[in-house]
Amino acid sequence: MHIQIYDTTLRDGAQGEGVSFSLEDKILIARRLDELGFDYIEGGYPLSNPKDAEFFQRLAAEPLKRSKLCAFGMTRRRGMKPADDPGMKCLLDARTPVVTIVGKTSDFHATEILGVSLEENLAMISETVAYLVSEGREVIYDAEHFFDTWKSNPKYAAETIRAAAKAGASLIVMCDTNGGTLPEEIERVTKEASVTVNVPLGIHCHNDCELAVANSLAAVDAGAVQVQGTVNGLGERCGNVDLISVMGNLALKKKGYEVLAGDDVQHLTELSRYVYEVANMNFRNGQPFVGASAFAHKGGMHVHAVAKAAHSYEHIDPAAVGNERRILVSELSGRSNIIALATKHNLAQDKELMTRVLDEIVDRENRGYQYEAAEASFELLVRQLAGDFHPHFKLDRYRVSVGSQSNETVTEATVKLAIGDDVFLEVAEGDGPVNALDAALRGALVKRFPSVATMHLSDYKVRVINGEAGTAARVRVIIESQDDEDSWTTVGVHENVIEASWGALVDSIEYKLCKDDGGK
Amino acid sequence: MHIQIYDTTLRDGAQGEGVSFSLEDKILIARRLDELGFDYIEGGYPLSNPKDAEFFQRLAAEPLKRSKLCAFGMTRRRGMKPADDPGMKCLLDARTPVVTIVGKTSDFHATEILGVSLEENLAMISETVAYLVSEGREVIYDAEHFFDTWKSNPKYAAETIRAAAKAGASLIVMCDTNGGTLPEEIERVTKEASVTVNVPLGIHCHNDCELAVANSLAAVDAGAVQVQGTVNGLGERCGNVDLISVMGNLALKKKGYEVLAGDDVQHLTELSRYVYEVANMNFRNGQPFVGASAFAHKGGMHVHAVAKAAHSYEHIDPAAVGNERRILVSELSGRSNIIALATKHNLAQDKELMTRVLDEIVDRENRGYQYEAAEASFELLVRQLAGDFHPHFKLDRYRVSVGSQSNETVTEATVKLAIGDDVFLEVAEGDGPVNALDAALRGALVKRFPSVATMHLSDYKVRVINGEAGTAARVRVIIESQDDEDSWTTVGVHENVIEASWGALVDSIEYKLCKDDGGK
Repeated sequence: MHIQIYDTTLRDGAQGEGVSFSLEDKILIARRLDELGFDYIEGGYPLSNPKDAEFFQRLAAEPLKRSKLCAFGMTRRRGMKPADDPGMKCLLDARTPVVTIVGKTSDFHATEILGVSLEENLAMISETVAYLVSEGREVIYDAEHFFDTWKSNPKYAAETIRAAAKAGASLIVMCDTNGGTLPEEIERVTKEASVTVNVPLGIHCHNDCELAVANSLAAVDAGAVQVQGTVNGLGERCGNVDLISVMGNLALKKKGYEVLAGDDVQHLTELSRYVYEVANMNFRNGQPFVGASAFAHKGGMHVHAVAKAAHSYEHIDPAAVGNERRILVSELSGRSNIIALATKHNLAQDKELMTRVLDEIVDRENRGYQYEAAEASFELLVRQLAGDFHPHFKLDRYRVSVGSQSNETVTEATVKLAIGDDVFLEVAEGDGPVNALDAALRGALVKRFPSVATMHLSDYKVRVINGEAGTAARVRVIIESQDDEDSWTTVGVHENVIEASWGALVDSIEYKLCKDDGGK
Repeated sequence: MHIQIYDTTLRDGAQGEGVSFSLEDKILIARRLDELGFDYIEGGYPLSNPKDAEFFQRLAAEPLKRSKLCAFGMTRRRGMKPADDPGMKCLLDARTPVVTIVGKTSDFHATEILGVSLEENLAMISETVAYLVSEGREVIYDAEHFFDTWKSNPKYAAETIRAAAKAGASLIVMCDTNGGTLPEEIERVTKEASVTVNVPLGIHCHNDCELAVANSLAAVDAGAVQVQGTVNGLGERCGNVDLISVMGNLALKKKGYEVLAGDDVQHLTELSRYVYEVANMNFRNGQPFVGASAFAHKGGMHVHAVAKAAHSYEHIDPAAVGNERRILVSELSGRSNIIALATKHNLAQDKELMTRVLDEIVDRENRGYQYEAAEASFELLVRQLAGDFHPHFKLDRYRVSVGSQSNETVTEATVKLAIGDDVFLEVAEGDGPVNALDAALRGALVKRFPSVATMHLSDYKVRVINGEAGTAARVRVIIESQDDEDSWTTVGVHENVIEASWGALVDSIEYKLCKDDGGK
């Protein structure tokens, strides 16, 4: 059975803390969802802001190809004909095939928050739906606080959805607005609602109890034909249900359901990362199905088993959602992790090199290196051991100093290095010692390698490895860098945090220069 | 009904990508879980590394008060008596009241991965459990790949848990090792398993389908009495089930269950953040129940309604889990923790001081300070605001430099400070800039305050707060110090890591001096 996927990333998702889409962002995401064949895409709330109104004009001029576009709004204002309500006008001006209307299911919210009588609330639902239908729109009705009200006042809850159904809504969406409903309640209420109205049901869940995916699946099993949610679970508080997980489960885990056009779930990983990119948010590594860690194996026993039979510790083939297996190198792992990583980098053929790599990694891990989050350093190390690494520059010396007096802090770094036969001495100030060193190092290098100007450090992490020796302990620095195309991570370890940072910094820049040489 | 909470943050959680606990980290977390009354705490896998073995020795010397400590291991090696297996010796040497043994449920894993016959696998389970029971241990049996095997070969799966039960295991834990099982399958299999053995059942879920919480609750509803998981859902791939969400649901949402000692769920937010801090990981804002956004309201309609009636868009009272409502967009976190902390320090009586403290903390949190894991800095700040702080020394200036040439790194710090009317100028070398500064500072102070010689820094953590600016971002440094009697933690924040470290260092030494004065 085909389950409709209704995306509200651009409307409810944008309510999430730290989420803010520009008009162009919204259009990019809508086009991408359309390419993947999402059934419905809710584009925004045209009455609430001009950006959303403009979005609909842009899409009216160049419509979506596969998905139905929805404009979102509320029931008409109290004591007013729909035709006179500016909200209705905005919705019609959006020129979408579908309009989604949210209404009050809760008697408490109708009378106490909105301040209208229970009868007027029913009239608002009914007249709004009927008006939009008469204007040629497909109308989806979102029943706010549906489950909470079904538990406290089932009679009135039923009246509200009957009003919407009778007025011509094509679908009634049961909203778990506060995210507090449990799967067994979702199942029971969905079954009861499905015999209350003669219109198909949809489900709209929030993740406040970490049950949004289970709740959406429970509603589908109980008869709902549409799931509303957002890509990556963006949304207010703990987020809306993550449609990625919903689709992964419906298409690959549960029996008898289909989403999108079947094979399109192979693009879920790409979609997830695309939306994070456009929203300028960090990936969530542990995200089910599509996270960078979702098929990453660290424990030695697991790695050993996965090498023998991939399904040993994987519930699906990572490729089914466009993801990939990763083997992490770490203190917990046996040699099998390193072998797997080396195989990925096509090292396994050269047995003798492989042994050297293994020995070196084991030795370095004992000294505190960690390559699981530093594949760029790993690659440089392997090239070095293979005799295939030619450093672009040679450090003579560096020096960095930090001094503080009367609340003023001054940081200065000098770097002296050689590129071929030419010697460069560079000085720079910075906000901190690593920033100053980075500036001095790149200041020297950019004269010969202009492309280092296009990269920058995007994250910097420090970890004391054996904490018991206090500040004299060994320190591991992880640096993440990026240019216009890629991001990469490098590692440095030393007793001295500056020296450890320097190691990671040099690896990062060498990796960039190798990359630009076309060296793999 | 009381549901047992079994924490494996320190073992299975440590398998998570980017998770790496020092010995001290592990002890801190175990003590905190013990304070909250977790039923079982799995401390590690003593055979796998010396750090875990050392952890158990430390806890044997000073045992937990409320929780039962568990050592984790595998069934005995093939063709060997348990008494001859070095793994068993390690487990007994750990001197824990409980031993948790994982064994193969899967016929495939027994024969193809482990390479033993199906009969030998049963003997390995049975003899291992019986041996540890005969040595006076409570034995919990973890049945790996339990659900997958129950679906593919229910007869053999049943034989494995019967072998464990018959040999004296006190509890059989059904593991969804690959995280691919659906709630309806968990429910069915749990019911079937509960009539197969006469021993109580536990559940151990992973979150690969974003269903770990629903799965754990489904098992409890079907009769499981123990839930295994980790704080914040740390763990391999997509993580283990998050015990925070499990406990929130069992204690506050579902009927008829109790966890911990009832009221202890009020500390879940504090616990969650504490574990993130110790693990040096960022909080997850959208985390159910305890995330900083979990009760944050952004949509205008929601804010309006929440102002009228708090429960409008909240499924529980945030205070029930120690969290708080946030209306305006702000970076503030953990006000309730501040209040709790202030109450702990007997500040709550002085309303006016309390207000000043709150205002100052809010301001400092906006700048990146965090006092949840830095109580010594908090105490100094409060004393300062109460006019009850008299610094023991006054810094004139410091300077630290790091230089590297021909593989030799030289670090030198100078500190000039005044104690009363006397001025001290001191120089020291060190393994790193903070180590050198610490040495110079204490070198000056020890002349007047000999007791500073009895303290040392025991841990040092650095976190970039707004990572996107790379090395120029703001940096938070947390320093843990100890003397013969206590350990305490201080915080410093600055764009410059050296200046941030200096702030934490000075707080640490002032705290020590105040403490020795008998100052509270």
